[in-house]
Amino acid sequence: MITAGIVGGTGYTGVELLRLLAGHPQVTLEVITSRAQAGQPVSAIYPNLRGHLDLAFSEPDPAALGACDVVFFATPNGTAMEMAPELIERGARVIDLGADFRIRDLEVWSQWYGMTHQCPDLAAEAVYGLPERYREAIRGARLVANPGCYPTAVQLGLIPLLEAGAVDTANIVADAKSGASGAGRQPRQHTLLCEAGENFHAYGASGHRHLPEIRQGLVEAAGGEVGLTFVPHLVPMVRGIHATLYARLHDPAADLQALYEERFADEPFVDVLPPGSHPETRTVRGSNMVRIAVHRPEGGDMALVLAVEDNLVKGAAGQAVQNMNLMFDLPEAMGLQGIPVLP
Amino acid sequence: MITAGIVGGTGYTGVELLRLLAGHPQVTLEVITSRAQAGQPVSAIYPNLRGHLDLAFSEPDPAALGACDVVFFATPNGTAMEMAPELIERGARVIDLGADFRIRDLEVWSQWYGMTHQCPDLAAEAVYGLPERYREAIRGARLVANPGCYPTAVQLGLIPLLEAGAVDTANIVADAKSGASGAGRQPRQHTLLCEAGENFHAYGASGHRHLPEIRQGLVEAAGGEVGLTFVPHLVPMVRGIHATLYARLHDPAADLQALYEERFADEPFVDVLPPGSHPETRTVRGSNMVRIAVHRPEGGDMALVLAVEDNLVKGAAGQAVQNMNLMFDLPEAMGLQGIPVLP
Amino acid sequence: MITAGIVGGTGYTGVELLRLLAGHPQVTLEVITSRAQAGQPVSAIYPNLRGHLDLAFSEPDPAALGACDVVFFATPNGTAMEMAPELIERGARVIDLGADFRIRDLEVWSQWYGMTHQCPDLAAEAVYGLPERYREAIRGARLVANPGCYPTAVQLGLIPLLEAGAVDTANIVADAKSGASGAGRQPRQHTLLCEAGENFHAYGASGHRHLPEIRQGLVEAAGGEVGLTFVPHLVPMVRGIHATLYARLHDPAADLQALYEERFADEPFVDVLPPGSHPETRTVRGSNMVRIAVHRPEGGDMALVLAVEDNLVKGAAGQAVQNMNLMFDLPEAMGLQGIPVLP
Amino acid sequence: MITAGIVGGTGYTGVELLRLLAGHPQVTLEVITSRAQAGQPVSAIYPNLRGHLDLAFSEPDPAALGACDVVFFATPNGTAMEMAPELIERGARVIDLGADFRIRDLEVWSQWYGMTHQCPDLAAEAVYGLPERYREAIRGARLVANPGCYPTAVQLGLIPLLEAGAVDTANIVADAKSGASGAGRQPRQHTLLCEAGENFHAYGASGHRHLPEIRQGLVEAAGGEVGLTFVPHLVPMVRGIHATLYARLHDPAADLQALYEERFADEPFVDVLPPGSHPETRTVRGSNMVRIAVHRPEGGDMALVLAVEDNLVKGAAGQAVQNMNLMFDLPEAMGLQGIPVLP
Repeated sequence: MITAGIVGGTGYTGVELLRLLAGHPQVTLEVITSRAQAGQPVSAIYPNLRGHLDLAFSEPDPAALGACDVVFFATPNGTAMEMAPELIERGARVIDLGADFRIRDLEVWSQWYGMTHQCPDLAAEAVYGLPERYREAIRGARLVANPGCYPTAVQLGLIPLLEAGAVDTANIVADAKSGASGAGRQPRQHTLLCEAGENFHAYGASGHRHLPEIRQGLVEAAGGEVGLTFVPHLVPMVRGIHATLYARLHDPAADLQALYEERFADEPFVDVLPPGSHPETRTVRGSNMVRIAVHRPEGGDMALVLAVEDNLVKGAAGQAVQNMNLMFDLPEAMGLQGIPVLP
Repeated sequence: MITAGIVGGTGYTGVELLRLLAGHPQVTLEVITSRAQAGQPVSAIYPNLRGHLDLAFSEPDPAALGACDVVFFATPNGTAMEMAPELIERGARVIDLGADFRIRDLEVWSQWYGMTHQCPDLAAEAVYGLPERYREAIRGARLVANPGCYPTAVQLGLIPLLEAGAVDTANIVADAKSGASGAGRQPRQHTLLCEAGENFHAYGASGHRHLPEIRQGLVEAAGGEVGLTFVPHLVPMVRGIHATLYARLHDPAADLQALYEERFADEPFVDVLPPGSHPETRTVRGSNMVRIAVHRPEGGDMALVLAVEDNLVKGAAGQAVQNMNLMFDLPEAMGLQGIPVLP
Repeated sequence: MITAGIVGGTGYTGVELLRLLAGHPQVTLEVITSRAQAGQPVSAIYPNLRGHLDLAFSEPDPAALGACDVVFFATPNGTAMEMAPELIERGARVIDLGADFRIRDLEVWSQWYGMTHQCPDLAAEAVYGLPERYREAIRGARLVANPGCYPTAVQLGLIPLLEAGAVDTANIVADAKSGASGAGRQPRQHTLLCEAGENFHAYGASGHRHLPEIRQGLVEAAGGEVGLTFVPHLVPMVRGIHATLYARLHDPAADLQALYEERFADEPFVDVLPPGSHPETRTVRGSNMVRIAVHRPEGGDMALVLAVEDNLVKGAAGQAVQNMNLMFDLPEAMGLQGIPVLP
Repeated sequence: MITAGIVGGTGYTGVELLRLLAGHPQVTLEVITSRAQAGQPVSAIYPNLRGHLDLAFSEPDPAALGACDVVFFATPNGTAMEMAPELIERGARVIDLGADFRIRDLEVWSQWYGMTHQCPDLAAEAVYGLPERYREAIRGARLVANPGCYPTAVQLGLIPLLEAGAVDTANIVADAKSGASGAGRQPRQHTLLCEAGENFHAYGASGHRHLPEIRQGLVEAAGGEVGLTFVPHLVPMVRGIHATLYARLHDPAADLQALYEERFADEPFVDVLPPGSHPETRTVRGSNMVRIAVHRPEGGDMALVLAVEDNLVKGAAGQAVQNMNLMFDLPEAMGLQGIPVLP
């Protein structure tokens, strides 16, 4: 059994980690920290866990956390870079669900996140936790930077095209839509039901923090510069991301369906749908699966890729568990095979 | 392994049965019938099942169904009573998720369902599948009448009071609220998103089919007549039932909390919440659990009971699986322990 | 033209007042105060008002407010009782949409609102602004206590029965359901889309602040004590209240339909639906109308009343405008005749 | 007073026309037809109209319709082209909210709508009812083809760029999102609350009927060919369209804000938001307004246009009333100045 700790478990990413780890056959959850809720049973905050998890929130304690095999950070940006070095020194392996270790260029990171990085050495060592691209490096990593929700969907949707050199990389559009859980559980006005319900709008049109992360991944996949326009939107629902991706094909006759099916043939969590499909976010709710469909509208030279994920699972906690499975030589899909609840 | 068949698997109850049975460690799903979809892979209709269930819909075939250990009917009212006799004769045990065998008084049944019953003998033999009341009879049953969604929530919320003789049975109010999935997957105007969304209303105020079923159960629990007013309402959400129950206590000093905790102490799927709680429907989404809280507003003589369930699970498919587990001597909670997805 | 001021106009009640007053042919909106937003144009916060209202928020200024003919308080409880005396002295008439002047017994008020009342004299003078009960007194009032949202729906639903002495007043149940806008625009966790969406639950089961207000009104209508159980619930939608009301008839043969039609025959904002109806909250969205249907389930002695309102209109800002019309001898329905937007 | 008739008034476009015309000071609604509901009072189907409209549905009668000054068709495609010729001959002017007269190339029309056109002459005469482009022609028209919902939002969002020759017309992306009311009131599975709620997906990715209509308008604005990729999505809400539009600027230094403000300076129903804005669909709910914001992400050469409308108002019934006002020399905004209800 692997022993696990969670730092900052009261947000939506935290409770999703709790759900997945509580049901994981090879994990014992030892510690879950929350300054605000220390002493409270987890199930008092999250009644869905009643009977499934007998654990209370505690104050963050490096000794207790460092004694775990693996520690997940489900914290605001800036926390993991402060605590991770000590935990790793104590022997724990770390998976950060925040953004502290996602961007390799720390100047770019500082610019978008408004902080100076506290541990550049660890940042250099961190492995970006997108298994479909970096599986082997993840296996051996001490520190995994778990990808953001939008970056996961957009990268998985585009990498077959970019790896194959099939599209004009100067002019890619990623029009992305997310449910409100991506904005977290902290009370804010714009995610009140009365503000976000029965409403739809874009945000961050002039620049969103996930843009440099996405670009970094696309550049690596393409092996060269990528011109990307990324526009996120808020959908009046709880869970789910839908990425609608547009790129010009060099060769309009390219067999997109075959390209995607081959690229993801061995991937346990990427499902390429039959030709003509329109993936629905609800078909991956609560699941680690990404479903993708590819189209060429009117048979032209535009590649249109539709990709859906659950932002809290493949876009956060589920991918973290997938990474943990890789790091500890467990079957990659262990604990991640629940069937999506539909409707 | 138990072999199972489903008749009429394209509705919401059907897909929920598919989800639960596909994940059940002791069940092999052999047959799923649908006249309309015969030949279609199940996962083409329900993409959430892709990779989890490799089965196609087929025409109803008594021989194939009768060869199963257990057959579930997830059909419109009136179908099970036509097909069940032959299947039982062929050796299958039957669980009807429709209403054909729920009401013991067949005249009452005819009155509310507008049909003449086709097999009174089987109706007399059928066991009402509410394990919290009829567990032993269910174990030996050839034919189980799975309770309706409202009847499950209302009965579980009231039976401790009635069994204990604690309330005035002449004057009980059950104000119940349900998500739209209770109305099924058949296209109807009033359950369109544009009709049921951003809207709330009562329905069936002059009489709902679940009323005689609820009354029958309450009368048995009370051992005498029960005066019940039952008003259902449609909530703009997909899943969940909330029953708000009102009954006058004979003794205002009665310890309701203790009464409920003791009554359900050994029940795997009834969770009595701590004093002062307000159960939320989302805490049981996708789960077979019923959560109940009891109150005495302003310390008066009114017992107020709040009960929530997932109408498609404990209110339909999950309870059916619970009944199957009992009928085949499996652990009662097998295949029913997924943790609710929240948020 | 009447000149009007609003104190505290950034909440949902405030913006609804703005919408109604901006479209009112006999009102000039002179002042709208908000400490937090002083200097900001109203339409920067509420883009729906762009082009309809050219006004900016200002710091509260007693001179500017006192110079208005009428001042509306759309403030947290406790503010109006501090500012109203000076404004009234300066000659303004005041309509408080908060709870400061709703409860006549100031001890009861203090108990539920946790404050000591600052101006008992004004409280004694204030008129409760439910036109269907107190129309004449409202006409002459200097200070109107605008009713709460739940109290409006519950009182209008019950007063025909109580005034007529038709029911057992010892045992009345008001099961009420509200959209999330009733909880206001202040960010709180439980009204986030991810908490309140796809979810349903009761709250305040052990006692809600609207209970003493409702009871006070029912007692006056009944001319004697009333035993009331009031349970509010949160509906996953923005606007709307549905009150489901249960009371035992003394005479089961009473003609409820006629009783309600006669009682409200001359009321511009109470619509008694035809027999057998189930009023829907969306049919009054954005409107000052209350729609009511009456039933006798199974022809028994239970009177079942279904009443819907828009909690922000008849339950708050619309009723305030109706009261203003009465106070200034304008046609009662002026500015309140927009047709509900449906769907 | 203008006398008006509506053919096919039971759908969502129909009820919205009813709401707008019932509140229009210069219109008397004389006839509203519906074969299915003939004889039923309009307010029995749409209780929001109780007290506002005293009219019953009738069988379509050319004499009664032809005697009206204006007849609106809110019918399925194919109906208007059968009935319009006779009505026009009888002297009525016609506004078709369907698609029968929108596409000038009747071969293209036949291809997308699967019918042969019944009156090519009238089709040639019809004026496309987008006032922001064809105002003068609309004034004199006998027959107006009211634009589709997506085409209105996409064209208004793009015409300033195209008219000014500011962008590369070979490669324009229109990623559009619509609430479910665009799919109509006819019961269909995919718009059930349980299918469309808590869900998001694209549809028609291989080609949508609005594509040729949009392209026709863009080509006219650009004065040359336009390469357009148009992908519609279904949003889990009732009303609203959000168009996210991408086009490459010839000159990255172009002042987009000034371009849009100047182009729409005199338009009563196009609101160009301040720089940096993200228009929300709810700010135009129930209103004929389109709100537009323009961005240049990261200061590059991509023009990003965000446009919102209410699909049932500016995208259908409201634009029809705007066209009627033009045709009958009424103030263009008459009857269209209700303030959007928010939240």
